[in-house]
Amino acid sequence: MVTTIGFDADDTLWHNENLFADVQVLFRQLLAQYHSAEWIDRKLLDVERRNLEYFGYGAKGFALSMIETAIELTEGRVTGAEIQRIVDAVKSLLKGPTNLLEGARETVSALTNSHRLLLITKGDLLEQEAKLVRSGLADLFHGVEIISEKNTDSYRRILAKHGVKAQEFLMVGNSVRSDILPVVELGGQAVHVPYHLTWAHEVVDSSSSAQSFATLARLGDLVAHVKNL
Amino acid sequence: MVTTIGFDADDTLWHNENLFADVQVLFRQLLAQYHSAEWIDRKLLDVERRNLEYFGYGAKGFALSMIETAIELTEGRVTGAEIQRIVDAVKSLLKGPTNLLEGARETVSALTNSHRLLLITKGDLLEQEAKLVRSGLADLFHGVEIISEKNTDSYRRILAKHGVKAQEFLMVGNSVRSDILPVVELGGQAVHVPYHLTWAHEVVDSSSSAQSFATLARLGDLVAHVKNL
Repeated sequence: MVTTIGFDADDTLWHNENLFADVQVLFRQLLAQYHSAEWIDRKLLDVERRNLEYFGYGAKGFALSMIETAIELTEGRVTGAEIQRIVDAVKSLLKGPTNLLEGARETVSALTNSHRLLLITKGDLLEQEAKLVRSGLADLFHGVEIISEKNTDSYRRILAKHGVKAQEFLMVGNSVRSDILPVVELGGQAVHVPYHLTWAHEVVDSSSSAQSFATLARLGDLVAHVKNL
Repeated sequence: MVTTIGFDADDTLWHNENLFADVQVLFRQLLAQYHSAEWIDRKLLDVERRNLEYFGYGAKGFALSMIETAIELTEGRVTGAEIQRIVDAVKSLLKGPTNLLEGARETVSALTNSHRLLLITKGDLLEQEAKLVRSGLADLFHGVEIISEKNTDSYRRILAKHGVKAQEFLMVGNSVRSDILPVVELGGQAVHVPYHLTWAHEVVDSSSSAQSFATLARLGDLVAHVKNL
């Protein structure tokens, strides 16, 4: 019996990837005189991946990776004013409102009395805390876990900490790689609710997964799914 | 009776501020043709303080603040190559070894069987986790709390989570502002072990504190202090 439900945050409960995508549009415009949009995107993703071990996830690392990419792609000719525009765009992103996905508040509210709800999100501590506060959902969760990477080890640690067996745990998220596969591997259940944008780093080859999890088109369908478990 | 001891990490158990200071030396050299060292330091601190609400603590925010400062102080003339040197220096800082302070390992080892030890550090999640792993001290702590800001609320939350009364808690750290005053305010005990460098943002006017805490010259003196409580 599922007693505990873990929710991913970014792009599961609230919009996030679209904010990064908007900044990336501005970044492309900045470098449009030097390179094609495709080439800029490809180089940026390369730099982001290379920098993950240094910077982890989040807007600050994104800013530094864009700056590095701009320097590389312009062979150092990018101007101070242009780099400042990148930093300013990321600051706006960091202070922007937390826009909930449709059905997020209703779904979490409907489950908070019948289940123990954990928010389990990877990323930058300060950023994730600030988004949770701005979301207005903080009081509906019984625990919040902000971790630097989502894998079987980190989920195992969280379950042990909260005294939950994997069979009693259901994870809900938009990333097959981060929210679904590690939990299924531990013997837990998982519900995939795809977001219309997926950061390229999070994309997995769908043929590689055993599909032993549910996929819902809308977060709003979760309550009915949980009732039928 | 003190059952639980909280340790700050940066500049209490391992060197940190000196790494930032080293990068700042390079930053000054980079801008030496434009401004005096004093003026550069003052502007950087202004920008860091202004950016705290966006970036929080840690090396990535430090990098972005240096970049902004360089752009401002050169009126945009700083080159891409120079900015890349700032980013590279911060990456080296992020990957550098965790150098323990003298007596750190012995002190933590001596107390881990008689007390519950918590590592309580503010800053960037990924950075602090990586430093703890590299320190080799992780197994000696019963709990690790990485938080975005240290104040009475965050200490109160941590004590509640671990079921510890303030009177049973002793906090050890190098920052009067972050490690000492909030804990004393809650009714806990605190031990100040000054580090030879203090980031200007952390400096408090010593006349404003009631001095209701102990100050030790060396972390190695802590075991004797705890025995005499």
